[in-house]
Amino acid sequence: MRYSKQDLKQISLREEINPKRLEEELDSGRCVVLKNKSRKIKPVAAGRAVKCKINVNIGVSGPKSVKKELIKLKTAILYGADTVMDLSVGAETSKIRKFLIEKCPVPFGTVPVYSMVSKNGSVDLSRNRILEEIENQASEGVDFMTIHSGLRASHLSFASKRVCKIVSRGGAVIAEYMAKTGKDNPFYEYFEDILKILKKYSVTISLGDGLRPGCCADASDEAQYLELSQLGLLRKICRKNGVQAMIEGPGHVPLNLIEENVVKAREETDDAPLYFLGPLPVDIAMGRDHIAAAIGSALAGFYGVSLLCAMTPAEHIGLPELADIREGTAVFKIAAEAVNLARGFQEQKKRNIEMSAARKNFDWEKQFALALDCSLAEQRHAKLNHEKEKFCSMCGENFCAMKRSKECLKA
Amino acid sequence: MRYSKQDLKQISLREEINPKRLEEELDSGRCVVLKNKSRKIKPVAAGRAVKCKINVNIGVSGPKSVKKELIKLKTAILYGADTVMDLSVGAETSKIRKFLIEKCPVPFGTVPVYSMVSKNGSVDLSRNRILEEIENQASEGVDFMTIHSGLRASHLSFASKRVCKIVSRGGAVIAEYMAKTGKDNPFYEYFEDILKILKKYSVTISLGDGLRPGCCADASDEAQYLELSQLGLLRKICRKNGVQAMIEGPGHVPLNLIEENVVKAREETDDAPLYFLGPLPVDIAMGRDHIAAAIGSALAGFYGVSLLCAMTPAEHIGLPELADIREGTAVFKIAAEAVNLARGFQEQKKRNIEMSAARKNFDWEKQFALALDCSLAEQRHAKLNHEKEKFCSMCGENFCAMKRSKECLKA
Repeated sequence: MRYSKQDLKQISLREEINPKRLEEELDSGRCVVLKNKSRKIKPVAAGRAVKCKINVNIGVSGPKSVKKELIKLKTAILYGADTVMDLSVGAETSKIRKFLIEKCPVPFGTVPVYSMVSKNGSVDLSRNRILEEIENQASEGVDFMTIHSGLRASHLSFASKRVCKIVSRGGAVIAEYMAKTGKDNPFYEYFEDILKILKKYSVTISLGDGLRPGCCADASDEAQYLELSQLGLLRKICRKNGVQAMIEGPGHVPLNLIEENVVKAREETDDAPLYFLGPLPVDIAMGRDHIAAAIGSALAGFYGVSLLCAMTPAEHIGLPELADIREGTAVFKIAAEAVNLARGFQEQKKRNIEMSAARKNFDWEKQFALALDCSLAEQRHAKLNHEKEKFCSMCGENFCAMKRSKECLKA
Repeated sequence: MRYSKQDLKQISLREEINPKRLEEELDSGRCVVLKNKSRKIKPVAAGRAVKCKINVNIGVSGPKSVKKELIKLKTAILYGADTVMDLSVGAETSKIRKFLIEKCPVPFGTVPVYSMVSKNGSVDLSRNRILEEIENQASEGVDFMTIHSGLRASHLSFASKRVCKIVSRGGAVIAEYMAKTGKDNPFYEYFEDILKILKKYSVTISLGDGLRPGCCADASDEAQYLELSQLGLLRKICRKNGVQAMIEGPGHVPLNLIEENVVKAREETDDAPLYFLGPLPVDIAMGRDHIAAAIGSALAGFYGVSLLCAMTPAEHIGLPELADIREGTAVFKIAAEAVNLARGFQEQKKRNIEMSAARKNFDWEKQFALALDCSLAEQRHAKLNHEKEKFCSMCGENFCAMKRSKECLKA
């Protein structure tokens, strides 16, 4: 085991799991602990036996501003991000990444292939470049990395039939490389070399889904499931090499296929922790995609996904601004809390019951304190109710169901 | 049958259902058509075999402004409300109701008991008052009415054990009446008299859930399920009396109990159309309860609920303002569209695929036109992208997965 007794004890307390059971889950790889060995953060566990978590993406595609990214990072954490990924693209991201890792109290993830594309769009996927970049990032303290090793040259013909082809940035870069060179995926070719580096730094691999469906019509197709099978095989290789692995998942999936997607991913990967983006159960919620995605995410989490990747209102439109990060994080926190209440965790049960009792007692301050977004709750109440009445303005004083029933149902 | 061939034909086209099958669904009561015989509106069908719909509540508890309510009504319809309920309370609501019904192009619902409470909170539930109010509202053109006949005196002891007792306004008024007088529920006592009036005007009854759980801890308890059984019995009486019936449902229900709630409601009521408020899968989303509720609603709709009652961000805080109505409606429209895509309707499939193709082609105008909230989509895009680029600012031009994969995967 690479985790100290102290870490495991802390995790088992936070996650309401018996320490022995936690060790079993970790040994089987059904649970992973995200933490680079050089980092001094609280380790975060992901798996079906522990609490459902949310990841929030930050990062830039255009001109970079370190301060702006730091504010996004802090906002994401304030609103409940359990992990953060820096999705900055381009080769010049090392400085900003080091700075952000330093400031980041939660596990920090990256997608190394994003640094292998230069400003003008040219790509270097040579063995040296790949291993060098991954080792650099691991040595900087990155806790988990998305590596798209599952996408194979033989999958491309299936992706070309799709409405939306490939919507994963990493997947598209690798597909293009394979199409142009006629070679297979270098992240597949050098997989064991990559694992050696990850093992050295205790970096968890997140096996990327380069072929995740980019619209509901492409969900559960051959391209997606061929890659998923490959991810299952790669996960076995990770286990052999002592590297913790998560499996990434879609994307866009209609409600009727979400259970199938989760169950299949669990089966194909021996119940590895799943890390899903959404899924979006409709393609047409532009401007409110974070809400559509939270619907899909809550369902996926309920069926067994361990880490929910937040979407923001900017999804499909542009790069998220600070307000988008805040809103996306807050909305996904609701989804994760719903999953954790359904999974029966005492922390959630207690907080929900305390909120409900405070509601019955018209204890507004206590309600604000217990709300997921206490300042929003307080602000809205202040706007709608000028005094802290013993009722809310919804029903008015003489029509309050809580008040009436509390009085007439005195036990 | 009370519906013209013309109406049935229109419904079968809109709902993508064979006219014969539609008639069977209507005959069995698994589907209802909401429309008072005096109204000149497009009839709206609700049931599992047709599209999932959303209802939006308007109305006032305090001082009334007809104009404000009219703007709310129009906004709800603009954002996709299939039906509207006026939840105004107090005896002086007739004038505003008549005015709103006149202006309302979709089925209009009410809760007559709300008019039986006077400003100071005193209640008149005499047989005369009940029948007079229901007849008045039916004659004004109300298309569907919530009547809480299922709550019985014998249920009160179960409700008194709860964390949140009774949170239905109508339920609390009736419970108080029963507790004070020692009598049973007058809406139960005079049920057949009520049905006679409803039948005369072709008003659909919505059997209210006065004991819906008001927090997740109270979900699926004895109080709720005893009332549900009663609703199943009442629904049989409706069928005998030629009155269409829907069944109302909770409320607050954790994710792990939503399927059970829907399945049980279907079983207890011979698959009557279900009309659910939420359910909220957490109690702590104050300020964003509409999003939590949309998560629960999408799941409930997927399991078979026919009409989703929208919640707004003001839920648990105060009376919704116009912006709340807009946001609640828009968010619930996403949930209903996700349900309808999952139910396999061609209209939804086509629109989602067209959106996805427009996305692949960077046809921004077409995307805005296909978005559920086209003006929001356009506004956000205008804010984030200064030109209509052939990529979005999320990935930037040189990192666009759509662009790369479209080029390298040319079939």
